[in-house]
Amino acid sequence: MDTFVIGVDLGGSHAACGCVDLDGNISCMCETEIDRENSADKVINENLIPLIEECKNKAKDKNIVGIGIGIPGRTDSKNGICVFAPNLNWHDVDVKTPIEKACKLPVFILNDARAMATGEKYFGNGKGIDNFVCIAIGTGIGGGIVAGGKLILGADEAAGEIGHITVEPNGPVCGCGNRGCVEALASRLGIVKRAEEAIDSGVETVLKKENLTSKDIFDAAKQGDKLSLKIWEDTGIYLGRFIANLATTVNPQRILFSGRVSGASELFLPSLKKELKERARMVPVEKIEFMKAKFEDDAGIVGNAGRAFECLGYLK
Amino acid sequence: MDTFVIGVDLGGSHAACGCVDLDGNISCMCETEIDRENSADKVINENLIPLIEECKNKAKDKNIVGIGIGIPGRTDSKNGICVFAPNLNWHDVDVKTPIEKACKLPVFILNDARAMATGEKYFGNGKGIDNFVCIAIGTGIGGGIVAGGKLILGADEAAGEIGHITVEPNGPVCGCGNRGCVEALASRLGIVKRAEEAIDSGVETVLKKENLTSKDIFDAAKQGDKLSLKIWEDTGIYLGRFIANLATTVNPQRILFSGRVSGASELFLPSLKKELKERARMVPVEKIEFMKAKFEDDAGIVGNAGRAFECLGYLK
Repeated sequence: MDTFVIGVDLGGSHAACGCVDLDGNISCMCETEIDRENSADKVINENLIPLIEECKNKAKDKNIVGIGIGIPGRTDSKNGICVFAPNLNWHDVDVKTPIEKACKLPVFILNDARAMATGEKYFGNGKGIDNFVCIAIGTGIGGGIVAGGKLILGADEAAGEIGHITVEPNGPVCGCGNRGCVEALASRLGIVKRAEEAIDSGVETVLKKENLTSKDIFDAAKQGDKLSLKIWEDTGIYLGRFIANLATTVNPQRILFSGRVSGASELFLPSLKKELKERARMVPVEKIEFMKAKFEDDAGIVGNAGRAFECLGYLK
Repeated sequence: MDTFVIGVDLGGSHAACGCVDLDGNISCMCETEIDRENSADKVINENLIPLIEECKNKAKDKNIVGIGIGIPGRTDSKNGICVFAPNLNWHDVDVKTPIEKACKLPVFILNDARAMATGEKYFGNGKGIDNFVCIAIGTGIGGGIVAGGKLILGADEAAGEIGHITVEPNGPVCGCGNRGCVEALASRLGIVKRAEEAIDSGVETVLKKENLTSKDIFDAAKQGDKLSLKIWEDTGIYLGRFIANLATTVNPQRILFSGRVSGASELFLPSLKKELKERARMVPVEKIEFMKAKFEDDAGIVGNAGRAFECLGYLK
């Protein structure tokens, strides 16, 4: 009988889960809304546990051996505790104990960006690659680092908070409070903000400031708008500087991009590679393989399933 | 009978080796000069092999099971090849084969800064610590990263080239060719250069430009020289920014400093910690333990011995 785990992707407004097999195939998907105004206790008991039970019911005939849950924040995975999740307003929440009790399966938790890297490692474009970095570029920038075949967690499971690498010491203030984090410059929000500032300063462009999105800037660039092209070129410079620091630190063979901004890679990869080569001269960065991550919307389910399989000894 | 390996520290002008036991104790030390003008072949056959044989002779009564050799450059440790060592002018030199043949013991090689971290991991102030970074601040800045209990090598054994993390994008040109590497600003050479520039610009100071050393700047700072105090404060800012990027990437529990500049830590640690806290807000950096490395002059011998023991399965 095949072995399955349930992978759970928990976000600030929505949770999804599915049964995952040892090849990373998903079945029996279930979804639910999350009201982030509710207490952690309520979200766990009224949203997460019923969601998982629904999935278990759909998969009644399957041999399910565990549950992996992704947390949008910092975790203490050994003890199954969410240390801090800003989008859920959770502080020191025991996720493991109540779900194990209710669902009668071992529960493993992991930060969502690290789970994404775990999914790529076992089932995606990191398979068989001992050294790679997953970089999700969306509203923010998150990441997960695999070195020597192992996911790096660090002393406080904060390793991989790479969106907060400083690339411009006197740059704009980031959501975290620091100046010039790569997230403040090259995330969707950072890109839009730089475009808005250029519009304000009177630069000629087809872009309109109202409801401006990174998609608008992408479309305008494709039509030759000079400011938009410059915005993507600069995005590549910031990302190149960022990846230069990563390359110098952990020397990955491969970089896997996910998230909406990564769809514009044709516009930022040339300046990214140029800046990377300029900066990281002690590392053979011309060998780095830039690829899309295999999983996008399902990355959380598959990644947390991979983590559960790993913790249970099914995958190494 | 106790088990020993021979650890070899190879530099650009000098090599030293010793017998090391499983507790990291050194005996039977031997040293020799190296003429970097000689070919790799000549250095290996006329310096390294006789040096190791001398040590083996001194340790005739000991059970020696292997040899670990540190390389001041990039290595392909799997194949025992020095890929590039600038100070020796070595390119793709097979170190392992001739020494194994002559000395009749298995040979393991490793980059010298990574060997330093390995020594601290098995015998020094990294013992029992799963996540730490060794930072050697001397003429340059080198490092070794241990994450999840394992030394990180990366895809090309270039992980840990952290002296070349950019901390000031438009900063001074580094020896590597990039601008604003932490090595260009906070190494001995970087510190002296900043002081010289300040003297040139007419800043009031007791420092004299002729034969200026980082020790002079340390002594002057201790006597209250304002420029010298500022030089060390700025050194702390650059190092803080550097360690913030490391903390955000690999989240170490401990930072181990070695090298001559680290002796001035009382002068740079306050501004280092302030900058670190300011920059790395997603990581509990206030928990990072700053310590001196246990090994300084013997770091190479002990570290490469540790690596040999590890490769032979005696240490994990």
